Amino acid sequence: MKSAIEELEAKAKAAKAASKRMSYLSTEIKDKALCNIADDLLAKKDDVLAANKLDYEEAEASGMSAAMLDRLLLTAERLQAMSQDVLTVAALPDPVGEVFEMRTLPNSLMIGKKRVPLGVIGAIYESRPNVTIDISSLCLKSGNALILRGGKESIHSNIALARLVQEAITRAGVPNGAVQLIENTDRTLVSQMLKMGDYIDMVVPRGGAGLIRSVRENAVMPVVAGGIGVCHTYIDKSADIDKAVAIAYNAKVQRPTVCNALDTLLVHADIAEDYLPKIAAELAKAGVEMHCDKSALAILKDNSNLKIVPATDEDWGKEFLALVIAIKVLPSLDKAIDHVQHYSSGHSEAIVTEDYTSAMRFLNEVDAACVYVNASTRFTDGSQFGLGAELGISTQKMHARGPIGLKELTSYKWLIFGNGQVRP
Amino acid sequence: MKSAIEELEAKAKAAKAASKRMSYLSTEIKDKALCNIADDLLAKKDDVLAANKLDYEEAEASGMSAAMLDRLLLTAERLQAMSQDVLTVAALPDPVGEVFEMRTLPNSLMIGKKRVPLGVIGAIYESRPNVTIDISSLCLKSGNALILRGGKESIHSNIALARLVQEAITRAGVPNGAVQLIENTDRTLVSQMLKMGDYIDMVVPRGGAGLIRSVRENAVMPVVAGGIGVCHTYIDKSADIDKAVAIAYNAKVQRPTVCNALDTLLVHADIAEDYLPKIAAELAKAGVEMHCDKSALAILKDNSNLKIVPATDEDWGKEFLALVIAIKVLPSLDKAIDHVQHYSSGHSEAIVTEDYTSAMRFLNEVDAACVYVNASTRFTDGSQFGLGAELGISTQKMHARGPIGLKELTSYKWLIFGNGQVRP
Repeated sequence: MKSAIEELEAKAKAAKAASKRMSYLSTEIKDKALCNIADDLLAKKDDVLAANKLDYEEAEASGMSAAMLDRLLLTAERLQAMSQDVLTVAALPDPVGEVFEMRTLPNSLMIGKKRVPLGVIGAIYESRPNVTIDISSLCLKSGNALILRGGKESIHSNIALARLVQEAITRAGVPNGAVQLIENTDRTLVSQMLKMGDYIDMVVPRGGAGLIRSVRENAVMPVVAGGIGVCHTYIDKSADIDKAVAIAYNAKVQRPTVCNALDTLLVHADIAEDYLPKIAAELAKAGVEMHCDKSALAILKDNSNLKIVPATDEDWGKEFLALVIAIKVLPSLDKAIDHVQHYSSGHSEAIVTEDYTSAMRFLNEVDAACVYVNASTRFTDGSQFGLGAELGISTQKMHARGPIGLKELTSYKWLIFGNGQVRP
Repeated sequence: MKSAIEELEAKAKAAKAASKRMSYLSTEIKDKALCNIADDLLAKKDDVLAANKLDYEEAEASGMSAAMLDRLLLTAERLQAMSQDVLTVAALPDPVGEVFEMRTLPNSLMIGKKRVPLGVIGAIYESRPNVTIDISSLCLKSGNALILRGGKESIHSNIALARLVQEAITRAGVPNGAVQLIENTDRTLVSQMLKMGDYIDMVVPRGGAGLIRSVRENAVMPVVAGGIGVCHTYIDKSADIDKAVAIAYNAKVQRPTVCNALDTLLVHADIAEDYLPKIAAELAKAGVEMHCDKSALAILKDNSNLKIVPATDEDWGKEFLALVIAIKVLPSLDKAIDHVQHYSSGHSEAIVTEDYTSAMRFLNEVDAACVYVNASTRFTDGSQFGLGAELGISTQKMHARGPIGLKELTSYKWLIFGNGQVRP
């Protein structure tokens, strides 16, 4: 174990050393490196698929579920899609080097900020090997060095992909050491990695709630993680019923397993008798189970086609990640805002209304990464927001909030141009 | 002790509740609150001075040093200055509510970011009672609620000042609970406070390195702290000698006890024989002790007016906070950048040069919050940078880097204006 820790430390040191040169690498070299990765994902597909076959067969033999096996599987088609995603990142503007807030002070000092990379990003993630390429391309484009720690189940694929990346970027002139993979899958190495605050500037955990919690609790460096998404949509009394049905249906059904999917539907009492039967009929077609409060239950109970369950206290503020929805009827916008404020996880919250003042109050008073009027919360996503790509959705307020794109992987430094100024 | 912890929790909850309304309080109310504080600092000066007298007498009786006593002391003149500082913050633009990066997506969703407060700031600080007013005014203006925990030695002053603030802001319409003071000075309450991640969004420690380290290690919420400032100034071979003398002298001598003061002077070998005797003569007049490497020693050793000591390994990367300087002669810009990269604490670093390419290389390659060409590092300061005021200087890369002004006490949320959009 001692030698594995020493090896990890050597990799972390190498990444830190590389990061100093990465911070002023030209966009040309970084984009060339990304294009090389995209090319190699096609040219070297046999090597990658052979490595992935080893992972797949081991996982299959160990009794992994079909859904997990599918997440693990790479195919020629998936490599093609991954290659395309890398080219998308290459085509995005380089966030590094942007100079902003530049101005001249009364004493003629010219000062401003220049965007710079964070340094070394540590990525800890599970099963899906395409994450290795995703994170590598985002970190490279934003000028950060990277230490990858993937899951045990995809170790052969990750070794093949990391080597591919290392060769491709070295060919383009990126400094050696910029992308590191921890090949030893012993769990104690993760704890060691989380203590290396001298070499790793930020850690990004990607995976289940357990992984994220454990990383948050043990890391000495800052952690940026997608949090839990308990998403509410409030149907105001003045809502357009058709929009309200389409928006809530889309937010719940279009992809129920993700963090921006709808969890709790709040409905104003004045519109509930008209709206609830209509949305419930649509949700029922998709097989959604509805956990209803007393008032909603009273309105919907006569329809035997619906999967209805009385709501319990645990339903409020719960992230279902499944075709389940909690439904509550409320007497006012104030009560709806109170409910959202109390149960929100700070991810994505929406109001459906035709009333201008209700819309503006909801936008002002609800505190979340993304606040919507008359649209589905499913739009909370780096690509949908026009950021090109994302590492996740932050529900924290410090540093980055909402989708973490290239810019959110940077910091800045102050540049001060003088001509001999001293402080009086 | 149990009741003290319960009381603290009640205060933290009250601050959190107030923060929700603080986030959309009008600039008018916030500025009125600040003007009331400024007024009351003059109108109620007798109450404050009487409370301060109690602290002062207790501290004097306990044998506190004259320097510390002076930090503790309030006078009519100092209250006048504090009042003026509050008015300065009132006059600054409100960072909250700024809407930026607003644009319309191809699907007609209009999205953008709106600047919002962080929520509840916890401030842990020592001795100087004016910090109570400083932090209160910055947090109020940036729409944050606040929990103050001052030092035991200034508890009477802090109680008087916090009550003054509470009354002044309530009169202006700021929600009750926005400014809380922990009056119980038991140390265990600080540990309790640092665990209240549900109520406190960020902690700001102000004080010595020990306090800052302890807060960093124990807080579950993010910490923003001024770090250590190990500041270098490199005199390039092409430097203008007069500028180089003036800049290094100012950076070392103008206020040696602060974090942006010069610690290590690096000098190119080609200019050392000309430059070193000149700067050393100036530094000697101010009583500066010079810790010189071999080459610098060889140049300066014949001058008996200088306080010269051979440098040891511990001198490089050391923050002196005193009239002491380390001096090293280097053969090239590359070696100077290497030295700075290795020993920098990421605060403020400067080059003095007339060579354009050397200047640009130093700006690009040195990784610090503030990088200077031909100016004194003493300018690293919120007021000097035109931010109006500051809570400290951040040497971290996440969230805020350099002076922490009003904007750095905020986050943002995404606003999404739709007309029925759903995700395809």
